[in-house]
Amino acid sequence: MSIQFQIEATDGPARVGHLTVPHGVIDTPVFMPVGTLASVKGVPQDVLEELGVEILLSNTYHLYLRPGVDTIRQMGGLHGFMSWHRAILTDSGGFQVFSLSELRKIKEEGVTFRSHLDGGSHFFSPESAMAAQIGLGADIIMAFDECTEYPAERERARASMEMTLRWAERSKRYFEEHKEEVPWTGNAHVGRTAHVGTAAPGCPAERSYANADTISSPTGVGEPRELTREIVESTLEHLPADKPRYLMGVGTPEEIDLYARMGVDMMDCVLPTRAARHGLLFTSQGKVSIKQARHAQDEGPVDPNCGCRVCSRYSRAYLRHLYASNELLGQVLNTIHNVSYYLDTMRAVRHSIQLGERARFLSERSGPKP
Amino acid sequence: MSIQFQIEATDGPARVGHLTVPHGVIDTPVFMPVGTLASVKGVPQDVLEELGVEILLSNTYHLYLRPGVDTIRQMGGLHGFMSWHRAILTDSGGFQVFSLSELRKIKEEGVTFRSHLDGGSHFFSPESAMAAQIGLGADIIMAFDECTEYPAERERARASMEMTLRWAERSKRYFEEHKEEVPWTGNAHVGRTAHVGTAAPGCPAERSYANADTISSPTGVGEPRELTREIVESTLEHLPADKPRYLMGVGTPEEIDLYARMGVDMMDCVLPTRAARHGLLFTSQGKVSIKQARHAQDEGPVDPNCGCRVCSRYSRAYLRHLYASNELLGQVLNTIHNVSYYLDTMRAVRHSIQLGERARFLSERSGPKP
Repeated sequence: MSIQFQIEATDGPARVGHLTVPHGVIDTPVFMPVGTLASVKGVPQDVLEELGVEILLSNTYHLYLRPGVDTIRQMGGLHGFMSWHRAILTDSGGFQVFSLSELRKIKEEGVTFRSHLDGGSHFFSPESAMAAQIGLGADIIMAFDECTEYPAERERARASMEMTLRWAERSKRYFEEHKEEVPWTGNAHVGRTAHVGTAAPGCPAERSYANADTISSPTGVGEPRELTREIVESTLEHLPADKPRYLMGVGTPEEIDLYARMGVDMMDCVLPTRAARHGLLFTSQGKVSIKQARHAQDEGPVDPNCGCRVCSRYSRAYLRHLYASNELLGQVLNTIHNVSYYLDTMRAVRHSIQLGERARFLSERSGPKP
Repeated sequence: MSIQFQIEATDGPARVGHLTVPHGVIDTPVFMPVGTLASVKGVPQDVLEELGVEILLSNTYHLYLRPGVDTIRQMGGLHGFMSWHRAILTDSGGFQVFSLSELRKIKEEGVTFRSHLDGGSHFFSPESAMAAQIGLGADIIMAFDECTEYPAERERARASMEMTLRWAERSKRYFEEHKEEVPWTGNAHVGRTAHVGTAAPGCPAERSYANADTISSPTGVGEPRELTREIVESTLEHLPADKPRYLMGVGTPEEIDLYARMGVDMMDCVLPTRAARHGLLFTSQGKVSIKQARHAQDEGPVDPNCGCRVCSRYSRAYLRHLYASNELLGQVLNTIHNVSYYLDTMRAVRHSIQLGERARFLSERSGPKP
């Protein structure tokens, strides 16, 4: 069993569709909440189900270090381990190796790095990153890539891209030979990254789109957001229309709306969950910093247009008190709201794309009078 | 409206009954989870409802400091502020003034103390403790008491008890004059503490039970648990049978079972919630320290005899991973399990007392053969 992608409606470059994977059918465009260590921090799995989360992202690097791939494989993979029976995507570990670990040494064979936890030495290659993800048993797994730093000279960007393409071939080969080893019945799918190496301003990036299913956004590796948008926009037109397009590590509510309208099908980001733990809430009326004293006696909900279980029940005053008192429940409730807001944002985008197609259909049908 | 207490069945000294308060009817004996700062740490209110929590305890001292009584009063009291529509009991602040604050000065008029948060100077008297609790709007509020230290000489214990009795009279008087000021329709009830001053071993404690509704256990003030049990046992026989008996700050699952069978009707303790956050889980098979490596690959639930939403869904291996990785969700799930286990313990005690009465009734009816 592999993944199936079906486009149901389009509106300009935007598409609404279904992504069918071993653990379910996902409405796209989709935002995937991040459960780094096999948990969306503070939110029980049944609440994620209620919110309508159809697919989670988990981080291979973190799970490889704790609790280890073997432990998770023996529990039936991530699905069994965390008792989450809907879809899961794992990243390759590439980004964390470059952003979190120390003393990394990059060679053609792979990357030697030190754990950010205890300094222990580890080695990731395209093959071992595949083996780890097959052991974790995600529905969609990612090829191991080098995350090119920003800024980078043209030659550096080209060399990095070319190595990542070779790594993608090795990843794919390993995957095809071992894909039956997932710890559940069925099969996973390896996403081949369209390597978007960014370069210094004024130095056009080198890119290759051959066989790419996804766009690996360099967001977080350091280039300005506006440049990310430009790169994504110019990349999308080169991607095959019939395959899902995954933009990693994006973004704000405005950005996930924008990218979905540009034709991106999948996104993930720690922003809604991380910001929640720091008291930053996303609402239909803009960002709300719940720590501010002006909310201390505000009986209204975080977002009057939100129907989530937090906005339905709790006041800004209570959430502000929980934050100011460093109460655990504050982080839990803030996270539930932000995840709900992101999912609602994507529901609205999907609806808008469907309405766009319908409007075009109706205007075409009413066309020239007989 | 005041509280009503009705005993439905007895078995020896133990009683099963109903405590009717403005925000609901409570099955007794009852264990009250502690929501110190208007939150049972990490657990959303709807989950507490699902667990069957009928009454919560909140701490006046903490809420007086943060967010302040005025804020809560303006939000409709604690019920409105935290969106909890079942019963709430507040303590008097007496225990925290003695255990948490610094530089306290005790006089007949009241206690001057410094906030444990910022060192600010505050004053609590029987009257101000009542005013604070009426502002918080709990269903049951407690008279302000001096928590006698352990050990104490006979004369010191007697003097402390006598002052607390004078404070109880002042509390009652203030309450009667101001009870209409609760921030919701209806009325609260002030529990008059049976002051159980413990003394040094071999030095019999001084006690008075006049007009007492409740037993203020000195647990936590420092005497050995066995001594607590002895004092409670010898105190219970002096308490009026038709009033609810509240033993504060108790205890382990074994203790809440034991005290309920001795005739205590109400208990509260931070133990299930605090222990949960430190990875200590209570089960039908004894205590489980979830941090231990031996749980790392254990696919079984925390307690095979527990039907809570945690034991129904998650493995020990997962909970161990969450604890070891310092994941928020670990604290949330551990707390839900422990609260569930405490409530189940009390359900079982109530059932056992009812069966005891039924067995006696049947044996009496079958009595001497005709």
